[in-house]
Formats: sequence, structure tokens, C-alpha cells
Amino acid sequence: KIDRDRLWRDLHRTCEWGKGERWGEGPTDIGMSRLTLSDADKQARDWFVEMTKSLGCDVKVDAMGDMSGNIFAVRPGKNGGPPTYAGSHMDTQPTGGRYDGILGVHAGIEALKTMNDLNIETEYDTGVINWTNEEGARFPISMVSSGVWAGAYTLEKAHNLVEVGGGKATQKSELERIGYLGTLEASYKANPIGAHFELHIEQGPILESSGGKIGAVEGAQAFKWFIITVKGRDCHTGTTDFQNRSDAMLTAAKLILHSHNKATEFGCLASTGILTLRPGSTNTVPGWVQFSLDIRSKEDFVVSKLEEALKRDFELIASGEEVGNINAQGTKGRGCTVEWQFDTDSPATKFHEDCIKCVEDSARDMLGTNAGSQVQRMTSGAGHDSVYTSRHAPTSMIFVPCREGISHNPAEYCSPEDCGNGAQTLLGAILRYDRL
Amino acid sequence: KIDRDRLWRDLHRTCEWGKGERWGEGPTDIGMSRLTLSDADKQARDWFVEMTKSLGCDVKVDAMGDMSGNIFAVRPGKNGGPPTYAGSHMDTQPTGGRYDGILGVHAGIEALKTMNDLNIETEYDTGVINWTNEEGARFPISMVSSGVWAGAYTLEKAHNLVEVGGGKATQKSELERIGYLGTLEASYKANPIGAHFELHIEQGPILESSGGKIGAVEGAQAFKWFIITVKGRDCHTGTTDFQNRSDAMLTAAKLILHSHNKATEFGCLASTGILTLRPGSTNTVPGWVQFSLDIRSKEDFVVSKLEEALKRDFELIASGEEVGNINAQGTKGRGCTVEWQFDTDSPATKFHEDCIKCVEDSARDMLGTNAGSQVQRMTSGAGHDSVYTSRHAPTSMIFVPCREGISHNPAEYCSPEDCGNGAQTLLGAILRYDRL
Ligand SMILES: NC(=O)NCCC(=O)O
Ligand SMILES: NC(=O)NCCC(=O)O
Repeated sequence: KIDRDRLWRDLHRTCEWGKGERWGEGPTDIGMSRLTLSDADKQARDWFVEMTKSLGCDVKVDAMGDMSGNIFAVRPGKNGGPPTYAGSHMDTQPTGGRYDGILGVHAGIEALKTMNDLNIETEYDTGVINWTNEEGARFPISMVSSGVWAGAYTLEKAHNLVEVGGGKATQKSELERIGYLGTLEASYKANPIGAHFELHIEQGPILESSGGKIGAVEGAQAFKWFIITVKGRDCHTGTTDFQNRSDAMLTAAKLILHSHNKATEFGCLASTGILTLRPGSTNTVPGWVQFSLDIRSKEDFVVSKLEEALKRDFELIASGEEVGNINAQGTKGRGCTVEWQFDTDSPATKFHEDCIKCVEDSARDMLGTNAGSQVQRMTSGAGHDSVYTSRHAPTSMIFVPCREGISHNPAEYCSPEDCGNGAQTLLGAILRYDRL
Repeated sequence: KIDRDRLWRDLHRTCEWGKGERWGEGPTDIGMSRLTLSDADKQARDWFVEMTKSLGCDVKVDAMGDMSGNIFAVRPGKNGGPPTYAGSHMDTQPTGGRYDGILGVHAGIEALKTMNDLNIETEYDTGVINWTNEEGARFPISMVSSGVWAGAYTLEKAHNLVEVGGGKATQKSELERIGYLGTLEASYKANPIGAHFELHIEQGPILESSGGKIGAVEGAQAFKWFIITVKGRDCHTGTTDFQNRSDAMLTAAKLILHSHNKATEFGCLASTGILTLRPGSTNTVPGWVQFSLDIRSKEDFVVSKLEEALKRDFELIASGEEVGNINAQGTKGRGCTVEWQFDTDSPATKFHEDCIKCVEDSARDMLGTNAGSQVQRMTSGAGHDSVYTSRHAPTSMIFVPCREGISHNPAEYCSPEDCGNGAQTLLGAILRYDRL
């Protein structure tokens, strides 16, 4: 049995690095702001390396991780071989919580501690991975470093990612700056994984609202990210009638609303999380607006269908045509142009049945006779590093409920009980798979 | 007759300070970025003071202007008395042009030069005013310093304005920093104006499209500025279905579109020039969005009517109700809250018939027998410092065409001919009024 108090204590200890907004009264009711490769992330990484070394792990490539900054800590088993890993990430959103990613890494370490405490010898190597820039919040491709490992992105592409918001730092320059640019090739060939288990908060409301305790994750939905640029013409808000405007902000508002309406129609998701405009003055109609568009569905073809529909409709809406009910009521102006830039995507993913089974069995074991519907098979709404490991290694994930499904929010919360359940299931799954 | 070449030369010389974006091939095809009280604005002010002094003006209060930074240069007439001024501003939008405001000040100085050249002695004092922060682009109340002079704002309010965009500088700290915080009371009582004429580009398309050369401005339309804050809840874009979202960006998009639709219905204007959101990550639904709302009409009651309608509708739309055709197609989420902050307003203004007549007569004089419809009475779409001077002094404005009505844009353009026509009409109006 894992030590639930130790897990809780350790997790909140490392959350001292990169503390975010306070949202409640309790000592740990504080969100996180630990962007990847920041100074706070370096502190968390240093802790990870020291801790796993002290637990007898071989931390690959003198503590620096691979060339993409991923850190692999390996606990030797009887027969070596590609390790069965618990993997997740310690970076967070700019205004994130204490559980997204962080719980998965800590649960992996707690599993190692428990194995040590109980002198468990595994058949093959086991270990814990801390992946780099899972969030995609600072450098704009999420799961990019597990993506490099899987061959989905070149190392060069990941290294050259520039931070969002106008800064100049790249993923490579920041890896160098904080001393985590390793020399080990970031590749499933050079550094194979035997199996990958990832404990994560669900980040959605399904488990909580249905009384579920553990989700055995069968796969992840597809998503595609774009940057949309709307170009019009700056003009004076007081002297330019609607007919003579090319209002990029008004057009962007229409496009965002239409993407929502269309996603509703297709039964999938569309979201805008970033929007910037120029020049930014109360009495100047903006001539330039740029916004992010994140579209998702369980089915790849629905993502493609929505993308196609929006590519066609955005053009029409920007030129003043009536589409859906957009442009039905206002004044038709002189129109704007719309440009699409593809940022990143993650196709729909199916995890490995053996791993899903290990998670399920381990959860049922822990919950005992009345597990029943407390263990549920489900699909992840978010992308995770497991999406990429699953391309070259048997993979599954373990979901635990988080309060009201809130995530990417300082008030994200997972109870000590659910954290413990997750870690216990993770340990069980690793040992089960090891024996398989 | 004024010297049109000298006017053109001088104007573009001072546009070396605060140069903005290049938009064409010509040596002066470069916009302006001379935010009020910036270093570039200080250079323009220093030039103004030196130049008007060299023309024999008494520059009030040892070159520092009044306590609101307004600079009054007075050319003595035979009988003293409150001067007949040409006034305008030398500050610009962040991506503005070379004519908005700047032309008015330069034309005033060109008028003084011409009076000197021709040894014209006026009955009463005449002069030129450079008003502070007309644009309201850096400190968010436009025409704030002529407003202080008119008693519409307290000096304290103007001094305490904080720059937009998160900086800490106030209008007072910047006046001090660049050495233009004067000691003369900024007040129509302490420092009366005899009459105020302001030459300005129209900033709209009416004169150009109707073949007009000079607009004799009868007044200015009303406007009201607000900051709207939409509060929802940050959540994950992939794991949160539409039903469970409080999407502040989607809500803001609906509000912006609705404000446009409703303004169309009421035959007036509504515009959003600034929008910021938090936290700003592709895969996080924003829980906080703030945007500016600028509403305008020739009639005060229409502005009030639109404000009322939007206050009611924004509430409903944010809570998910169907209003107009907004919320008719998408998924109703959990709703957001909307807060209104009133920023500034400028009621509809009527200028003085004597002054309007002086402008008209002077323009007809200049254009000769075939003036006809080349001289037009019109209403200003934008606010100007003349709105405030008109509260305590006979006032009118002179409009000249600008290309395609484009303003608040680097490519703003007024031909040498039109600049000259404007300055000539300005000089004529001042001399006419002086004799009245
Ligand atoms: N879990 C998570 O936030 N992953 C980042 C990729 C995504 O947005 O789905
Ligand atoms: N002319 C001008 O841009 N004035 C500023 C106030 C307004 O936005 O109307």
C-alpha cells in the first residue's frame, strides 16, 4: 500500500515552487503558475532528480534529461529491459492548479518509494518520467517533447518554438539556461519505453457526477489548434460609419461565435483562449486581430469536417455574407480578410488493451467488492503525453475525479483520498504489467 | 495669404519626433506614434514654445503651460483682451497619422507667421493653443485637459489618470517628468479664451465623396465610453463540454456583435477598440475578459437609449437568454456576469453661429465665385477640444477632407492643397472674428 499522507505532503511541498493565485483559506488552497522551463520549473526538476537518485534510480544522462529535456528515472529490475514507466509533467498553465500533471509525477515517485519500502523486486526495470512542456502554454505545442520522443515532431521544431506573448526565448534557449538540455537522443529508438502509465485528474465532470472513483482511460480525443488572423483597417470610431469599416474586432467576434455555433451543431468543441488586437485604443476600430482556435472531437473526421466548414464560413462571414444567423442583423461593412495558421494537432488515440486491463484490475483490487461502477472506462478530453507514448509502447491512463471538473484554474482540486486512490492504482498497474 | 509650402515643410519637420509606421514610398509617407507626454511629445512641445516665442508671442507661465499642461501662446493685439485662438493638439494615437491635431496647431502657427509677415495688427490678442492629451489614447479620457479648463473635470481627476496597458505613469507624473506641469490655473476663469477656432481633418469620408473643400462645423456628436468586464470561469478547452462552461471570451464576442447590431437598429455607432483577456492560453477557456465600448450619436437621447438597451441586453445575453439572434444557435452554458464601468462622455455640442459664419465667409472668400457646395456645414463625428472651449467661448471648427476618410491610421493623408486651404480659412476666420 502506498503512503497517502506522504504523497500529499510531498506534492504540496514541491508546489512551493511556482505558486500562483490563492483561491481559498487553506494552506494549500493556492494555484500554480509554473510555466515550463521557468526558474520554478528548474527547482521542481532539481527536486525530481535528487529525489529519484536518492531512491536508487539511475537518472539518465547525468541529470539533464534527453535533448528535449525529458527526464527518465529508472529503478533497476531483475532482468533490465525497457522500463515500465509512470510518466507525467511538472509544468503548469499560467494560472493552473496543483494536480494537473504534478499528481502523476508524484504518484510515480510514491510508487517507487513504496516498492523500496516493501523491498519489491520487479522482473524488469520500472521508472518515472517528467516530460517537458506538456501544457503548450509557454511554447505553443502541447505534449511537444513526448511528441519528439515519438517522432511526431523533429527535435529542431521543438527547440525552435518561441514563447507566446512576444518574448524571444525558445524552448532550446530555456533548456540551456536552466541546465536541462541533455545529450541523450530524444527518441523511442534510442531510449525505448516498455510501457507507460499516467495518472491524471480527469479535468472534466464525468467521474464526480456519476460517482466514479477511477477512470480506466481507453484513449484520447482528437484536437487541432490554429491561429486565426483577421485583417481590416484601423479607422476612427466616431467618424467612420459602419458601411465604411473593415472592423477586425467585430469580425473576430462573429467568427468566435460562429465557431461555437457550428461546433454545437457537429456535437464537438471549439474554443478561443487567446486574443490580441492592434492598435488598441478606445476610439480606433482595430485593423488587426489574432486569436487561437482549438477544435476537438472524439473522431478525427469530425475535427476535419468542422475545420473545413469553418474555413469556408469564416471567409464568407468576414466578407459580410450571412452564414447561420451571423451578419443577419448588423450593417454590412467593407469586409476583412482571414488567414489560418495551423499550429499543432493530435489525432484521436486508442490506448493498449493490456494496459487498460491492468488499470481496471488494479482499481477493482483496491476498491474491493463494491467497486462496481466506481471503475469506469472513459475517453480523455485532453491530450496527454500518453497520446505519444502510445505510438511506440503499450500505454494507458488512470483518471481520478477533480472537483466540479475544474482544471486549468487555480481552484483545481483533487482530494487526498482521490490522489491516494490514483497512486495506489498506478502502483498496482505497474506491478501487474511488470508481471505480464 | 498663408505660405502653403512653409506650412507643409514645418508640419513634416516636427513629425520627425514620434515617427510611426511607414505606409508608402514617399519621404512623408510615415505615420505617427506620439503618445501624449512621451519624450517625442516633449520634443514637439519644446519646438512649439520656441517657435511661438520667436514669433513674438507671450507663452504663458514660463513655457510650461497651465497645470494641465496646456500651452497658450499669445500674440498681442491693440487692445489686449481674451485672445482669439487657433487651438488643437500635437499628441497622436499609438498608430496615428500626421494630420489629426498636428495640422491644426501648425496652421495656427502659420497664421501667426503670416500676420507677422504682413504686419497685421489685430484689435485684440490672438494666439495658438496646444492642448494636452486630446486623444485619450494613453490616459483614457480624451480632450481631458480642455475639459479641465472648461470645468468638466477636476484637475485632480486629470492628474491621476493612469496610463492604459498596465503601466504606472499618471498624467501628472508624466507632466512633471517632461517638465510641462505649469503653475497657471487650468480654468476658463483664470485664463479666459475670447474665441476658439480649430482646423482639423474631417476624419470621415463626407467632404471627399461630395467634392467638399471646407466644412464649417456646427457641432459635434455625443459619445460615451465604457469598460465592460465579463467574468466567467477558467476551464480546460478539451474536457469541459459547452454546458459546463462560463466562457468569458465567447460571451464578450456575443456582446460586441450585439452592440453592433443594436447600434445599427438605432442608426448610431458602437465600437470596441481594446480587448484583453485572462489567463491567455490556447487550451484554457478564459474566465475574464475586459473590453472598451464607445457609443456615439448626434443626439444625446439616442446614446442614452442605446446604453440602456445594452445594459439590459448584455445581462440577458451573458446569462444565456436569446436576444436578437444572439444565443439562438449555440449551446447555453452556465452563464457569465457583466460589469459596466463608465469611463468618460461628451454630450452633443452646438458651436457658435458667429464663429461658424466667420469660417464660412472666410472659406467662400478663399474659394472665390465657384465656392458653391465646396463649403458645407457639417457635424463632427469625433470629439475635439473645441467641444469644451465652446462651453465658455464662442467656438467653431474647420474641416478639410482626408483621403478616403481614413484617420487613426498611419496612412491618414491630407493633401498640401487641403492643408493650405484649411490654414487660409483659419487665418481668415481669426481676423474676421477679431474685427467682429
Ligand atoms: N492535459 C492537458 O491540459 N494537456 C494539454 C493538451 C491539451 O490541451 O489537451
Ligand atoms: N479627434 C479625435 O480623435 N478626438 C478624440 C475624441 C474622440 O474619440 O472623438
